[in-house]
Amino acid sequence: MPKIVDLNCDLGEGFGHWTMGAPDEELMEVISSANVATGFHAGDPTLMNRVVKLCQQHAVGLGAHPGYRDLVGFGRRYIRASSEELVNDILYQIGALREFGRRYGIALQHVKPHGALYMEAAANEDLSRHLVETLQRTAPELALFCMDISHTYEVAQRLGQPVVREFYADRDYDASGSIVFQRRVAPPDPAKLAEKCLRACLDNTVETVDGKEIRVEFESICFHSDTPGAVEIGRAIKTTLLENGITIAPAALVLKQD
Amino acid sequence: MPKIVDLNCDLGEGFGHWTMGAPDEELMEVISSANVATGFHAGDPTLMNRVVKLCQQHAVGLGAHPGYRDLVGFGRRYIRASSEELVNDILYQIGALREFGRRYGIALQHVKPHGALYMEAAANEDLSRHLVETLQRTAPELALFCMDISHTYEVAQRLGQPVVREFYADRDYDASGSIVFQRRVAPPDPAKLAEKCLRACLDNTVETVDGKEIRVEFESICFHSDTPGAVEIGRAIKTTLLENGITIAPAALVLKQD
Amino acid sequence: MPKIVDLNCDLGEGFGHWTMGAPDEELMEVISSANVATGFHAGDPTLMNRVVKLCQQHAVGLGAHPGYRDLVGFGRRYIRASSEELVNDILYQIGALREFGRRYGIALQHVKPHGALYMEAAANEDLSRHLVETLQRTAPELALFCMDISHTYEVAQRLGQPVVREFYADRDYDASGSIVFQRRVAPPDPAKLAEKCLRACLDNTVETVDGKEIRVEFESICFHSDTPGAVEIGRAIKTTLLENGITIAPAALVLKQD
Amino acid sequence: MPKIVDLNCDLGEGFGHWTMGAPDEELMEVISSANVATGFHAGDPTLMNRVVKLCQQHAVGLGAHPGYRDLVGFGRRYIRASSEELVNDILYQIGALREFGRRYGIALQHVKPHGALYMEAAANEDLSRHLVETLQRTAPELALFCMDISHTYEVAQRLGQPVVREFYADRDYDASGSIVFQRRVAPPDPAKLAEKCLRACLDNTVETVDGKEIRVEFESICFHSDTPGAVEIGRAIKTTLLENGITIAPAALVLKQD
Repeated sequence: MPKIVDLNCDLGEGFGHWTMGAPDEELMEVISSANVATGFHAGDPTLMNRVVKLCQQHAVGLGAHPGYRDLVGFGRRYIRASSEELVNDILYQIGALREFGRRYGIALQHVKPHGALYMEAAANEDLSRHLVETLQRTAPELALFCMDISHTYEVAQRLGQPVVREFYADRDYDASGSIVFQRRVAPPDPAKLAEKCLRACLDNTVETVDGKEIRVEFESICFHSDTPGAVEIGRAIKTTLLENGITIAPAALVLKQD
Repeated sequence: MPKIVDLNCDLGEGFGHWTMGAPDEELMEVISSANVATGFHAGDPTLMNRVVKLCQQHAVGLGAHPGYRDLVGFGRRYIRASSEELVNDILYQIGALREFGRRYGIALQHVKPHGALYMEAAANEDLSRHLVETLQRTAPELALFCMDISHTYEVAQRLGQPVVREFYADRDYDASGSIVFQRRVAPPDPAKLAEKCLRACLDNTVETVDGKEIRVEFESICFHSDTPGAVEIGRAIKTTLLENGITIAPAALVLKQD
Repeated sequence: MPKIVDLNCDLGEGFGHWTMGAPDEELMEVISSANVATGFHAGDPTLMNRVVKLCQQHAVGLGAHPGYRDLVGFGRRYIRASSEELVNDILYQIGALREFGRRYGIALQHVKPHGALYMEAAANEDLSRHLVETLQRTAPELALFCMDISHTYEVAQRLGQPVVREFYADRDYDASGSIVFQRRVAPPDPAKLAEKCLRACLDNTVETVDGKEIRVEFESICFHSDTPGAVEIGRAIKTTLLENGITIAPAALVLKQD
Repeated sequence: MPKIVDLNCDLGEGFGHWTMGAPDEELMEVISSANVATGFHAGDPTLMNRVVKLCQQHAVGLGAHPGYRDLVGFGRRYIRASSEELVNDILYQIGALREFGRRYGIALQHVKPHGALYMEAAANEDLSRHLVETLQRTAPELALFCMDISHTYEVAQRLGQPVVREFYADRDYDASGSIVFQRRVAPPDPAKLAEKCLRACLDNTVETVDGKEIRVEFESICFHSDTPGAVEIGRAIKTTLLENGITIAPAALVLKQD
């Protein structure tokens, strides 16, 4: 059976007159799913409108990327709050994005919590459960993006919410399968990242920072628009995968394939 | 034919730990439609969640009450911005509220711009046109609340968007049919306001501040939750209308009746 | 030697059109020091201007009450951030308030971190050290309000920053000397709280929630403007202390007395 | 008498993880005065701390650049508000920046309202008067930056507030002496802008967009950090002026020279 995988990227991460990362227009030509910032950590209605229109034009899967209410911290700072409150924040942001999808005739494909909220959901079963139970009522068709090793994945699997696991092209793994966070690294070599992705697709393995080899399970490959050379990285991944007979398609299609 | 009218009120106008106006719970027992603050001038996701749930419990028509992005000014300060930008802001807020409606199984009934944005739309044909044209695509079933004498009403009528005109129970009119804004008045007499509403319903007239009588056309009566004695005002209006054979029902039903 | 103590309260905790707690004007007649919200968790420039003017009129000691940047959470949610970032936030807020003091010819007397930031500083030696070291450069004369048992107190004492310990009139203590947080209690009895304060002033003891007696050291008594009956509580404390020969004076004078 | 002029630029216009315009570090080597964003339209405490430190290191005159409370609009949208409210907003921002100056041992040199607030003050005598009267109490030594043709200049002159008029290196003038706003122009030629500045310094004239020549009076030359090639523009102006015997110095020194 031919391998099929999704290629996703965080987009629309500017705010007002500020921009961040590679141009959304260029990334759109490479990816199959977009995680669109929804206003709490980045993104504003006019930017969201623009990015959703681009998704429609490029047939890219539209995803909400809700974050903590923290513009100054870009949603990367943990805020201690109840699961109920955080799920309300997430619902608000999902709905806001969905309305722009409605404008351009495209349905919301997925939701992926952003930054510290993504990590918090992974580690916090109560939050993951509140989120998934709520999605079961408001959006049972919505794919939830998460890490393979996370409460989010466990809970979504158990409760029957569609779920998409991510492989991180531009992040390093340790032996536990966790991401190793590093700031200010030299721009990565697109070809090397593409090879890493190819191997992950074909063999389901990745080499860790300490030279070991671990197993990875995923339906989508993620790279970040603020990684230096993001467009080149995306292109290298896309080209390499296609040349090796791997299909790149929006997450919803990957799930159907399964 | 028996007269039928909607009774609406602005709700959910707190933010975080702050509250404003009469308790939402008490107002819910009186009104037939609620304008729920959607986060830009007031309202936060957790408060919105609570108010939407109340709407569901009381079978009150759910309306979005989007405002300028201006918490400190409570959306009462005019911000010079393009129609495109403002419509994006409105869409964002509509979508956010709609998602909570989805959670509780109720559809959005109407949208009513808040404060300075409501007045700006009334006076600015370009903004009204952008708004209505967009609603025609995203929410052709949504009733747009506005003043009788306004570009908003003209444009909505012309383009076929359902439209509901308001009569203001707790505001005074001048001879032109415009609202006279006054700050810090003595708490109004609920009985007098109820009589004023009754007459407006039966005769379609209201007495102006300078003692004249003008004609008023409307499908909904509005009173404000931060007017002193709001709950008593709402109860007096409801009781008086019911005693005089006038039905109070959510705006969507009033429109169907027409 | 006659006993002298400060009586402080958090003020200016509204935002824009929202208000919170007892009226600032009434509290001003009771207290000797005010902790003024400085815009991040509550407070806006126009409100700050009004409260600072009141401080000048009532000869109340002016204090900055900087919080986490979190309006929706009222600064009661912990946000994980570096000590450097938090100290920058605090400096910003201190400076903003100081400028209004300049307008009315009064110097800043003290600074008291608000809510979760106060608790975080108490528990986080690194944050307390960064804060005190910075105050030593920018405001060596500013009194730092804190709990007796806290890193804030230890560090301030060690580095020579003026420091004022608080006794909480409207909070309960446990045997460790920690505050027991309770939400939604019945309105406290002003007379009982006043007796508690009197005993704390005369004997330096307080009864804990489990009936023990512990020692307390403080230079200022704190009560909260959003505790039900705040004005009556403040009046009862003031009257009871005065009747028992205890002087109430701004924290700066209490420190000089020592 | 040798000519002396100030060269100023807007700095610190990022927010959190977002940046804007040319790097502050490079601009610091060219300019003599910096207008530092103070948090309402751009700028955050940690960024302000960094820019103030740079001002101290480069002996650049420190100026507050307060704007409308409008991050998403970058302070370029007019907000209808009372003069009292706007002056409170300005005071707040001035004080916040002043505190960082205190940290690094440098006094605030000037204040320059940002964007739409600058234009509003220029056109609104009431706002200019409220601002200057307040500065006379809080900061009588602070230089107020403004346009030559403006209520701000008139009022500051009349009331005795130090005042600095600006000449815009990277903006075009019309015959009335007003700035012609243009978006998305091709990157300007640094050499041409430098020649324009030189002529303005030597002859007090500038050529308008329709080929006329008008008189200009100023003590400071302004260029914008988000004009493409800002660093090169600044360098060209500095070099050209220096080569022609014109001294570049912080505004406070230029005023003393007069």
